[in-house]
Amino acid sequence: MSAEWVTSVLAGDRRALARLITQVENDTSTARAALAALYPHTGRAHVVGVTGAPGTGKSTLVNELAKAYRSGAAGNGPRSVGIIAVDPTSPFTGGAILGDRIRMRDLAGDPGIFIRSMATRGSLGGLARTTADVITVLDASGWDMVLVETVGAGQSEVDIARTAQSTIVVEAPGLGDDVQAIKAGILEIADVLVVNKADLPSADSAVKALRAMLDLGHRVDQVTIAHHGPLAAQLAERPTRPPDARLWQPPVLKTVANTGEGVTDVIAALERHRTFLTESGELARRDHDRITAELDHLLRALLLRRLLDRVPAEALQAVVAKVVAREEAPWEAVKTLMDSYCD
Amino acid sequence: MSAEWVTSVLAGDRRALARLITQVENDTSTARAALAALYPHTGRAHVVGVTGAPGTGKSTLVNELAKAYRSGAAGNGPRSVGIIAVDPTSPFTGGAILGDRIRMRDLAGDPGIFIRSMATRGSLGGLARTTADVITVLDASGWDMVLVETVGAGQSEVDIARTAQSTIVVEAPGLGDDVQAIKAGILEIADVLVVNKADLPSADSAVKALRAMLDLGHRVDQVTIAHHGPLAAQLAERPTRPPDARLWQPPVLKTVANTGEGVTDVIAALERHRTFLTESGELARRDHDRITAELDHLLRALLLRRLLDRVPAEALQAVVAKVVAREEAPWEAVKTLMDSYCD
Repeated sequence: MSAEWVTSVLAGDRRALARLITQVENDTSTARAALAALYPHTGRAHVVGVTGAPGTGKSTLVNELAKAYRSGAAGNGPRSVGIIAVDPTSPFTGGAILGDRIRMRDLAGDPGIFIRSMATRGSLGGLARTTADVITVLDASGWDMVLVETVGAGQSEVDIARTAQSTIVVEAPGLGDDVQAIKAGILEIADVLVVNKADLPSADSAVKALRAMLDLGHRVDQVTIAHHGPLAAQLAERPTRPPDARLWQPPVLKTVANTGEGVTDVIAALERHRTFLTESGELARRDHDRITAELDHLLRALLLRRLLDRVPAEALQAVVAKVVAREEAPWEAVKTLMDSYCD
Repeated sequence: MSAEWVTSVLAGDRRALARLITQVENDTSTARAALAALYPHTGRAHVVGVTGAPGTGKSTLVNELAKAYRSGAAGNGPRSVGIIAVDPTSPFTGGAILGDRIRMRDLAGDPGIFIRSMATRGSLGGLARTTADVITVLDASGWDMVLVETVGAGQSEVDIARTAQSTIVVEAPGLGDDVQAIKAGILEIADVLVVNKADLPSADSAVKALRAMLDLGHRVDQVTIAHHGPLAAQLAERPTRPPDARLWQPPVLKTVANTGEGVTDVIAALERHRTFLTESGELARRDHDRITAELDHLLRALLLRRLLDRVPAEALQAVVAKVVAREEAPWEAVKTLMDSYCD
């Protein structure tokens, strides 16, 4: 059934797509087989992360971006848009007020729009993993654009954003200076900065503040913030950026997402960024870093599963009990386990 | 040198303590040996997590809690207090304004206070790990209270809070309704809820809203939100809560941290919670879950390191290149690696 299913998903069957994503969320063996079969078909979609604090209006912006892509604002006709909402405050995930829900009805019924919200209960680390797999599915099944909305607060959400090729960080004027320290961390992942609610009086000073932070060098070299697991460390020939490479200067744009004002400028910036990524070789470098991190994660999971298959439950229980009783430190317990059950 | 050092730390030598924590942050082999030697001496401190959004005034609350513990507010004389600040907006980490810095001078110079701020650059996942180790060091070296301040936004920060025995979630009136959805997630980890800045007019409605959310069952069974890795799944005899066990009802308290108002009530609630944890058996259950999650994490790290020691760099490079070229899916590549290099 799996092969047929993959064919349906590749052919753009929405129901097959929705069912496969459910399988992916449940991490079934069917899902894993399908992901492997779909993987060679990936690499075409433009994956855009949209992140920012609650209250910045990023869901509305996602909505307007989707509408603009549908009406051909990016050039060369309308594009199909898949939306993945990982933000617990997003109307797409059901976290927001009635007005937002009504607004997102604009998108419903359009065959060129696919919306999927992801549960944020449980481990966000697992969610980062699942989101990456859902992006794979949407990419393989031919969606031109994949927009991933996250709340952008913790490391795991930064990881989700990092799966994207282009990341929009949305700010709003007057959210308070004490958030600045957090913003500094988020700025590092921004390819396009958007000050939404630009009709508010303090919008210009927010734009100025963001430009100043960018000039102060809060943005570090993209490559240096990549994952640095042991696997990455062992790779001798990681592609590096040539010293004369063009660099991307993140633009700071103003929007009023409620009225759609400024949205086409955001789309134009995303198009420029995509071109930059391809021409500068940055796309290949990011792809390489992302895949390295993914292999690192999968290897850990599989190695642990393999070890646990060999350890009798009682032996494991005894080790945990010793650590709980403070008779053995965790690190020592782990070494004991490995000495006994690894070759 | 390591054994002497451990003796100094156990004897309460502040300089040895500070130097060891630096070693822990750098994950040196000395640190690992010291952690193993210190581990049997842990389990005495009351570890309290203090979390909440930026602007709620939780740093000021931590400051006032520390002062109150020093002046004997918890009963049985003054207690020594170790503070770990993982919050990038905290004055303890240097993220906040001058007034806060002046306020924290109250604590400097008191030999019964130890303050350590943790860098939030880089991986928050790694930070959760390091924070747990620093808690181990402070616990073993005899600090009565360990207060851990985090910003409480992402999953990794929830993980940090989860290392604590008692977690205070700090709210402030009027931070906006759109933050509620996030609060719901944070509420699940709250043992004590504090509405700070209670002199603001909307404080009572904030208290009412939080009580309503608690009644609505936003708080799930503590046990069900524990880590559920494969290691935990394999443990047959995980201690479970008896059906007639007493449950903890998180109190909602009001404070004005700037003036110290309500702080002794928070301390009284923490004392009640600590007694509850011990008498209900919940402390043992949380300890068990925390240790299981830690062993899970350590096993993954060590297994990966061990595998990579066997794989030649060129072979690893070739595998990554195949995945980058979309010739092989990540999951398949990982299986190929394991088939070739594991016994």
